[in-house]
Amino acid sequence: MAKNITISVDAMGGDNGPEIVLLGAKMSLLERPNTRYIFHGREDELAPLLQKYSDLQAVSEIRHNDNVVSMDEKPSQALRKGRGKSSMWNALQSVADGEADAAISGGNTGALMAMATFCLRPMEGISRPALAAVWPTLRTEIVVLDVGATVGGDAKQLIDFSILGAAMARSLFDMKEPTIGLLNVGTEEVKGLEAVKDAAKELSSHTGRGYQYHGFVEGDDIGKGTVDVVVTEGFTGNIALKTAEGTARQVATYLRTALTQSWVSKLGALLASGGLRTLRDKMDPRNVNGAVFLGVNGIVIKSHGGTDEVGFKSALGVAYEMAQNRLMDKIGEGLKQFETPDQEAQKAASDGENDGEVASA
Amino acid sequence: MAKNITISVDAMGGDNGPEIVLLGAKMSLLERPNTRYIFHGREDELAPLLQKYSDLQAVSEIRHNDNVVSMDEKPSQALRKGRGKSSMWNALQSVADGEADAAISGGNTGALMAMATFCLRPMEGISRPALAAVWPTLRTEIVVLDVGATVGGDAKQLIDFSILGAAMARSLFDMKEPTIGLLNVGTEEVKGLEAVKDAAKELSSHTGRGYQYHGFVEGDDIGKGTVDVVVTEGFTGNIALKTAEGTARQVATYLRTALTQSWVSKLGALLASGGLRTLRDKMDPRNVNGAVFLGVNGIVIKSHGGTDEVGFKSALGVAYEMAQNRLMDKIGEGLKQFETPDQEAQKAASDGENDGEVASA
Repeated sequence: MAKNITISVDAMGGDNGPEIVLLGAKMSLLERPNTRYIFHGREDELAPLLQKYSDLQAVSEIRHNDNVVSMDEKPSQALRKGRGKSSMWNALQSVADGEADAAISGGNTGALMAMATFCLRPMEGISRPALAAVWPTLRTEIVVLDVGATVGGDAKQLIDFSILGAAMARSLFDMKEPTIGLLNVGTEEVKGLEAVKDAAKELSSHTGRGYQYHGFVEGDDIGKGTVDVVVTEGFTGNIALKTAEGTARQVATYLRTALTQSWVSKLGALLASGGLRTLRDKMDPRNVNGAVFLGVNGIVIKSHGGTDEVGFKSALGVAYEMAQNRLMDKIGEGLKQFETPDQEAQKAASDGENDGEVASA
Repeated sequence: MAKNITISVDAMGGDNGPEIVLLGAKMSLLERPNTRYIFHGREDELAPLLQKYSDLQAVSEIRHNDNVVSMDEKPSQALRKGRGKSSMWNALQSVADGEADAAISGGNTGALMAMATFCLRPMEGISRPALAAVWPTLRTEIVVLDVGATVGGDAKQLIDFSILGAAMARSLFDMKEPTIGLLNVGTEEVKGLEAVKDAAKELSSHTGRGYQYHGFVEGDDIGKGTVDVVVTEGFTGNIALKTAEGTARQVATYLRTALTQSWVSKLGALLASGGLRTLRDKMDPRNVNGAVFLGVNGIVIKSHGGTDEVGFKSALGVAYEMAQNRLMDKIGEGLKQFETPDQEAQKAASDGENDGEVASA
């Protein structure tokens, strides 16, 4: 029996207004009828829209809020102005208050990350939060993180990301021990990779505790789907994600040009349209919309700002799956499993040593 | 009148043996008849192959060498064993000795970078060398660096890469002031980007001196071809390059599946085969083979190890163009133009200040 899931929605976030948000929610409800919604935003805009969809209206509540975080506001500015009184903040507050199982927004990414960190607080034991993307590959969908929450990072941070990413894969893909790969460059003996190498050692020594450590992976392993979870720091992860999006668009443009260059090509494309439609579906970014902000005390989903109702529906699906499959519990289990009895004993011993040193000093 | 260009070739480098190297050279010679070759490697293997191509033989010389750097050797190991006595080292030595205008190898990347640095020495004024890739985009080909020579880097290093990349674009694409973009993430106010921000300031203040500074670019700007030169540190650059390669392969696989899923699709693909061939050519990695190791005193080209004769021919084309268009002179000009009279005066003044401080201390 699937339990009811309540999703708290920043109905004003995104470039395309609340219309696509409500329509996406209506579409998602058809697939997941045990969803409940709290829509945060301007009641005068939301109420007439909601009235059009009686099924949705029956499971929804509107919380009026006049303030909308704009897309170009700096995170610090948005936080100052919108804290406690914007549709984005209030969407998060519903999760903090235990009214909702997940929050979602298509608004300003930086502002959402800042607000989520302030409103929901970082999880105990996690040094910095991460933004995780669901990435389609030749094998299956995988999780890639961090795609832009933080820049740089030490071994501890990469390990945190691994625990978070593994928990997300367990929740989203219903797997027991997802494989983890650390993103790295192929050239050996390059200086400056201490963080990645140290993280590799730690992950390797704990393999089997909620994940299987695969080893290093390179950029082209993402598209191959070599592992279930690819871990890197946020600068590289963001560049990788955007570069892949750019390349996919580039190839799609080449293909369009190729299939319209003569009337014979056009006829061929028409005949092959069934196959090409499958291709278009596979490459449709709307079908993999919904990045997850991991490492705070609650489920927070970032929808693409420019998406439409189909994309928003996908992001709502991610929110639902994570909540239904107890993401937060799984992260907690992951953190606990990483602290092995050995490690704890070792820690206790080394604490003892330090005490000794202090005493003898 | 184009001058004769001598290319020094590590004939034993790469996964597919000297056959594809010599065949690629023969093909390149047809397009660039004023090329001369020095082939370094095992004479007993090379001589019989060369005899098959009399045109190539007439402009070539074999330098016997028994030692081959293996593909899986660590750079330090390769350097220790192969210094002064491997086909790879000797290919570089011909450039150091002024016998050849450029060196090329399809061998072990790390070893080639280490050997090039030792044999040709870093250029005066350049802190660390970079590996630059020629990247096909929707607009035209562009230069992206560093794609894996170094990890991390301060502002000075990103500025060096900009000067090197701009000189390469001027040599390869015959342009006067290529546009430069610094790779960055979109989210504002992320900590840890000081190097990128500082480099941006410097580049901006010197714009017009051999390049036009465009500003920050994101990962998807690479495929769009927003700028002529994209600059980043080597870890991110390598991940971006490999991720793009992986994505292109992924889409190509989707396309193949789509066009063979039914006999109607197959018939369509057959009719569209003209257009699809153009697409295949555009996506053929062999046509953009040949990364450039920049920042040492000589032109060094890295061919993909797994390429065939067509790919090796492309890499030879890069070597030829760079030599013909005086890459090294252009880098020198770039370095000089960056040191503005203002800057020099400022430097002299601040030296004076420092002297003063020392004197007063």
